[in-house]
Order: sequence, then structure tokens, then C-alpha cells
Amino acid sequence: MSNTNPARGMRDFLPDQVRKREYVIGVIKEVYEKYGFEPLETPTIENLSTLTNKYGEEGDQLMYKILKRGEKLSKKIESGDIKNENELTDLALRYDLTVPLARVVANYKNDLPKFFKRYQIQPVWRADRPARGRFREFYQCDVDAIGSKSMIVEAELLSAVSEILQKLGFKRFSILLNNRKLLQGILEVCGIHPDHQSVALISLDKLDKIGKDSVLQELSDRELLNEKSIDRLGEFIDATRVIGEAYDGSDEEDENDYKRRKSINESLLENLTLFLGPNSSGQLGVEGIKQILDLTNKSQASGKMSFFPTLARGLAYYTGAIFEIGLDDEESPLSIAGGGRYDGLIGMFGKEEIPAVGLSLGLERILLIMEERGMFPDDLPTRAADVLLTLWTEETAGESLKLANQLRQNGLRVTVYPEADKLGKQFKYADQINAPFVCVIGESEIAENKVTLKNMKTGEQETISVDEAVLKLKD
Amino acid sequence: MSNTNPARGMRDFLPDQVRKREYVIGVIKEVYEKYGFEPLETPTIENLSTLTNKYGEEGDQLMYKILKRGEKLSKKIESGDIKNENELTDLALRYDLTVPLARVVANYKNDLPKFFKRYQIQPVWRADRPARGRFREFYQCDVDAIGSKSMIVEAELLSAVSEILQKLGFKRFSILLNNRKLLQGILEVCGIHPDHQSVALISLDKLDKIGKDSVLQELSDRELLNEKSIDRLGEFIDATRVIGEAYDGSDEEDENDYKRRKSINESLLENLTLFLGPNSSGQLGVEGIKQILDLTNKSQASGKMSFFPTLARGLAYYTGAIFEIGLDDEESPLSIAGGGRYDGLIGMFGKEEIPAVGLSLGLERILLIMEERGMFPDDLPTRAADVLLTLWTEETAGESLKLANQLRQNGLRVTVYPEADKLGKQFKYADQINAPFVCVIGESEIAENKVTLKNMKTGEQETISVDEAVLKLKD
Repeated sequence: MSNTNPARGMRDFLPDQVRKREYVIGVIKEVYEKYGFEPLETPTIENLSTLTNKYGEEGDQLMYKILKRGEKLSKKIESGDIKNENELTDLALRYDLTVPLARVVANYKNDLPKFFKRYQIQPVWRADRPARGRFREFYQCDVDAIGSKSMIVEAELLSAVSEILQKLGFKRFSILLNNRKLLQGILEVCGIHPDHQSVALISLDKLDKIGKDSVLQELSDRELLNEKSIDRLGEFIDATRVIGEAYDGSDEEDENDYKRRKSINESLLENLTLFLGPNSSGQLGVEGIKQILDLTNKSQASGKMSFFPTLARGLAYYTGAIFEIGLDDEESPLSIAGGGRYDGLIGMFGKEEIPAVGLSLGLERILLIMEERGMFPDDLPTRAADVLLTLWTEETAGESLKLANQLRQNGLRVTVYPEADKLGKQFKYADQINAPFVCVIGESEIAENKVTLKNMKTGEQETISVDEAVLKLKD
Repeated sequence: MSNTNPARGMRDFLPDQVRKREYVIGVIKEVYEKYGFEPLETPTIENLSTLTNKYGEEGDQLMYKILKRGEKLSKKIESGDIKNENELTDLALRYDLTVPLARVVANYKNDLPKFFKRYQIQPVWRADRPARGRFREFYQCDVDAIGSKSMIVEAELLSAVSEILQKLGFKRFSILLNNRKLLQGILEVCGIHPDHQSVALISLDKLDKIGKDSVLQELSDRELLNEKSIDRLGEFIDATRVIGEAYDGSDEEDENDYKRRKSINESLLENLTLFLGPNSSGQLGVEGIKQILDLTNKSQASGKMSFFPTLARGLAYYTGAIFEIGLDDEESPLSIAGGGRYDGLIGMFGKEEIPAVGLSLGLERILLIMEERGMFPDDLPTRAADVLLTLWTEETAGESLKLANQLRQNGLRVTVYPEADKLGKQFKYADQINAPFVCVIGESEIAENKVTLKNMKTGEQETISVDEAVLKLKD
């Protein structure tokens, strides 16, 4: 007997899982549409040349590449002269949603509006080591606004994602906000050589986890930065130490939480303005933070914004605002979304530089947390049908089908039991498919032009007319 | 500059196209759900061993296979000893939705209900030669009912697909119905040796296109069948010659069409019962046809059923009813769906034989025809937003965002123009994104706590309160 499991790192989604996924995707789409974002879909398979050298060495290794086909391949194999894998492949699977977007923007330039606001919810594939919550096929939910440098775009994105999280039922979350220009300014003020800035950022990014002393020790151990720079970084870290009241453990956020965040943000801005002094890059960064805090103030993101001056985010391509959205959790915040401004990347396939801001929601993680916390709505269907119609004998099948047709015209989801089994068996099946009602159309019911409707939860049953049954079922 | 086209045979779907695809998929899902079918999704990537030898030689050739990764591959290449492509690949892309379904049924046996009714709408990949309407990535919409031999299942499937086509706006279509057992009986009665039956079926299937004489000539040329068999086949063809009134060219089908189909079906059944005589396989086939005609009589497929005794359908695995749905067209019928009963296939990964009936809708073809015939509903959104909010100056951005927030709370789709460009430019953008309204929030409007709402179609504009604007926009 063959192996019937899905391939390693891949998943089958049985009906209940599909429904949960579709529910979350539906909320995301609905909100993005309200913000004027439009749907885009790109193919699963891209030319290899479109994808290579876009994701660094790791990306090239984790990418799924497709074997060449037909004569080309067989000739190559026959020749016995294969130097490297690139001779065997010409196509690869989508690895993220940003590179395809950049390709689309370059390819359909004249068909797209001046500002192109798109969302894209599609799977990507990475031959990563599978782990809990990490799969080789997983969905990305990206939203990007192309073509404007205005920070209104950042504010709109953050408002939209806040609305999504609220709609899904997440009550406690923070939007950590920083700006690459501000980080740039800080590194300059600390006198850190451009070659060593990324190393310094990587250490700083860990501040929350390992603390000030360890960050400075790590940098000192690397022997790249001089003592004065390390001292200055220490001063910067001190300037970020603004302590508000701690999270009070309540489920709902309230005005106090918002006020706490606001006062921390203000103190931090003050401290950093002092620290940065006349540094121009730093001033631009501070200005950017202020603007976004101001613009989001009346939006759905209001009260959720936390200026977080050590947030760096890994990707090298960010050029302005960066953000990360974390669910407040008893242990440590769970990151479920991130993004930022990247004014250099979208133009990679063309000649011009095209400004862009984007944000990616971690669908698989959101689903996992919602599952753990039991956050799916009660009225999400967990069943195949609203009602199961029984079959009395093969001769009365027409009656069952006719009734099914009537009930469906009234918007009900109906399954007809296909075989003239004993009623007990048919009821057992209703249980299996979670049908809340069973409608028995037996000999006497047919004679009287009635049906017997049984509520599977309460066990109540009554023999009523079809019209009455429709009304009861639609309730 | 790099190539920015999608890979050969692949397509990007820009927003308007995504909306059309989602509309059609939405109708299909909604109807299947009403019939008690549940959604299933399987991974894009399957183990190669799951897919090989399931689709015949052509399938193995057209399948997209994935190159092995990492050390395994580099060692193999270094060894210089590669005998065939199977040493280079271990995974492949989904080629259809039936084999994954069979794998799922075997793998989750205990989690699935006794009768598993699933629909699955996902892309598949075939390295076919691209042509008009034929792509290398295309969606299949499959619906299958697993676990019952009852023909109620066939009737329900045909009712569902009829309802889908009617909902999409297809008025003239026929469901051609035949039965493999009936064909079996005919070939037996004609004295055709089992080894030559498939050849005879392939020729018969062309009857509509090439006519009786050519079919018989073709069979005679092949020199496989004896003269008596060919004569008997000729008699069979004559028995299928039941001529009703011709299609009257009207757009709507009416009672006359239904009556015409019914009387042809009856004459055909009579003729074939005579032709088949006591042949048991043939009798089973006739019985099956009668049952399905009877069961569909009160369903959504009522009046659409055409018994079509020469319909054979290519796939070898059908065991009972077979059907094909064609749109009536001035030239020749356009096939947009097909399926049948295949009681041997689903059990391929397990030990037991599991009965099944399925049907596949040709999504890409349906979309193409709907596009050509202009069948998409007028209220299908073809725009990014219901209203564009202008930006007066950077300082008034907060006002625009606040209003956007208000309008969105009322369910409107709103885009905020992100830059303080001249109003003319902002209106031009509203045209680009097809926004039917523009809401100007200028200096005087802000002072008066009003907005100026412009209808982009009529050119009318008025300065009104926000509440009035909401009411107007929601209309």
C-alpha cells in the first residue's frame, strides 16, 4: 500500500480547516477592500531568472526549482555532462509576494493606476526544515501601496491592519513603530562606521531579549566598534528606557493603556531628539515617527502605536518607517505582522525608483493562535448541511429530492441520504456530518404531505407541513 | 532589463480579472454548499510516487517535477552518474484533483463521514503546449460524492451543476447522459471482442462530428472488426437517429425544448431496449439511464437531460453513468463540464473498492465564454473604491483620514489621495481607479464641517454634511 500522507511539510485541509482559513482570509480581504486595496494574483510558477539573486543565498537554497522537461532534459542527461543544478532547471515556485509584485508593476505599468494599492493572499513555498507552525507551503497576506512617499500611506496601512485584528477578535496588541532613518542617525551619532552598522543593528534588535549589558558585551566581543561608540550606544539604550505602567493583565485594552503608550511615545521622542542633536538623518526619522503617530491618531490604530527605537527588522531593503505588530501575551509578545517602507525594491525590474510601503500578515500564525485561544465565531459552519433529508425507500427518492430542492430555494444547505438504510443508520450519519436537523419523509408523511422534523440537539420532533419546516429551519 | 512577463503558459491576474474569477468561484461554492458538499484543499506539491503511473504516459510527461535539493542533489551531480530524470526529482505539482482526493480518502478514513461529499477548486499544472484558452496553470472545479452506489448521487450532482450554470446566466445548455454499462452491452451485442472495444468507442464518440458512414469506414479500415460487427454497429447508429424539432434559435429555453428532449429520450430508450434485447449489461445501463432521468425530473436539471447513447468520454476509469454538459451554440455545442461514476478509482490507495461519482467544471472555459458574451453582472465591482477622498494640504490630512474612517464604518470602500497635488490631478486619479464619487475636503469645507461630493458620472456636485454624504454614497 502506498504512502498516503501529504509530502513532508505540506498539509491537507479537511473541510473544517478550510472553513476556518476562509473565514480569516475573508475578514482580511473585506477590510483591505474597504481601504481601497485591490486583489492581485500571480502564478505559482515563475521563470527562475525572475527569482534568483533576489532573496540572498538562503533564498536560492530554499527555493523549489522545477526540473526541465522533454527532449532538452533527456539530451542533457544523456550527455552525462551536468556541471550544476542550473542546467537542469528553468522555473521555480513563488517564494514570496514582493518580487512578483515588482515584476507585475514593471510589466503592466500602463494598465495600473498612478498609486497602485494591492493585496495578495496566496501560498508560497520554501524548502525549510518543518517545525511547529512552520510549513513548506504557507500563505502570505501582503498588502502594499505603490507610488507615493506620503506617510498617509503608512497610516492607512496601520489603520487597516488594526481593523483586521480587531475584527478577528484580538483585543490586546501593539504596533511597534520605528524608522530606518532614525536608526541611521543613531549609528552616525555613535560614530559607527557604515561597514559595521548592520552588525550593531543586529545586536540592538536583541535588546528586549538579552538586555543592555549583554548587547554591549556582544558588540565589544566582536572588536569592530571602538569603546567610545559602545559607550554612546549605551547612552542611546538608556535614552530608550522610558518606563510606563506595566500591562495590568486585563483582557480589554482601555484608555489607560492608550494614555500609557502615548506618554511613553512622547518621552521617547524627547529623549531621542536630545540624543540625536543636529544629525539630519536622525531628525528626518524623528519627524517621520511624529507624523505617523499624528496621522494614526484618529484611525483604527489609535492608541495602539508604540514608538520602539530599537526595532530594526531583518530585511535590508527598508528605507523609512518600519513596523511590527505584536499580540500582548503573558510571556512574550507574539509577532503576527510586520512591514515598512522600501523605496528601492519595487523598481528592481525597471529603470525608475518607485516608492512603496507594505505589510505582511502571518496567516498561519494567526490561525494557530485563534485555534489555541478558541477565537473562531460560534456561527462558523462546522457541518456539511443545515439539515439531512432521510430516504424511506428507493421509490420515494423523488419526494426527498423534491423537498431538498424546495429547502435549497430557501437558502438552506441540504444533504439527501442516498440509500434506503434503516433510519437509525441515517440518524447516525446526521451526527457524523453535524447536521443540526433531520427531516424524515416516511410513508405516512408522504401520504399526509408533511414532514417530521427532528432537532438533533434537543431530541424534539414534530410532524409539520413543508412550509412550517422551512420557517423552523431558517430560524 | 530583465524579462517581466509571467513564465510561458502562466498568467498574472490584475484586479478586474481576480474579481471576475472570484465571482464565478463564489457562485460555484455557494451552490455546492447548498447541496451539502464540503470544501477540501490539498497541497500544491505531492510526493512524486503519489502521482506517477496515475495519468498514463502523457501525464507522466506533462507533469511538473521538482528538482531535489541540497546535498543529495549536489552529490548526485558531482557523481556524474545520472541515468534518468527520476534520480533528480522526488516531488511534483498537483496534476488533477482526483488523485489527491483518493489519497485523502485513504489517509483520513476515520475522520471522514460515511458519504464524503467534497468540492475542490484549486489550480493544477500541466506542461502542455499553450494555446488559446489553454494554460499551464489552470483551475479545476471538481465535485465528488464518495461512498454510495445510489443514483440519487448522480441526480444531485446534475441538479447542482444546472443550478450553477443558471445562476451564472447560461440559459441554453444540455446535459448529455450515457452509461458505460450500456455501451458495454452494445459492444457485446455487436460481437466486438473486448480487446477491440475501446477502438470502437473512440470511433463512435466521433459520430456527431464525422457522421455514420465515416465512423463505419474508419472501423472497417482498421481491419479489427468483422463485417457483421460493423453492420450491427450501423444498426445501433440507426437506432440512435431520433430526430426532434431543431433548436429554434431563441435565447431562452422553454417548455417546448424540454418536451422535445423528453420525447427524444423516450424514443431512444425504446429503440435501444429493442436493440439490446436480453443483454444483461445493456439492460443495467438502460435501467441506470431511466433512473437518472426520473430522479432529475423534479430537480434543477429538469428539462435539460439528453440521453446520448454514443457519448463515450475518454477516461478509462468510468464504470457507470457518464455525462457531459454542453452550451448550445450556433455552431457546435461547447463542452463546459463532464464527469461520471468511477467505482474503482478512489480506492487506489487503499484495499477496498469505494464507489464514487464526480463532475468537473471547466472554470477557464466558463470565464472565457462569459467574457465573450458579456455575462458578468453589472454590479460586479470594477473599481478600487466607492469614493476617493481628496487631500487639501498635508496639514489637513488628519481631516481626510478621519472622514475615511467614518465612511468605512458605514461599509463604504474608500481611498484617500495621499499627496497634496492639484485637485485636477486628484480627479484624474479618481477616473483611473474608476471611483464613481469624489469627496473634496477643502479649506472652506473643513471650516463649515461639510464636504463637497461630486458624482463623477453626472458631474453634479454639492456641498453637504458628512451624514448627508454617507447617505448619498450608500445609495
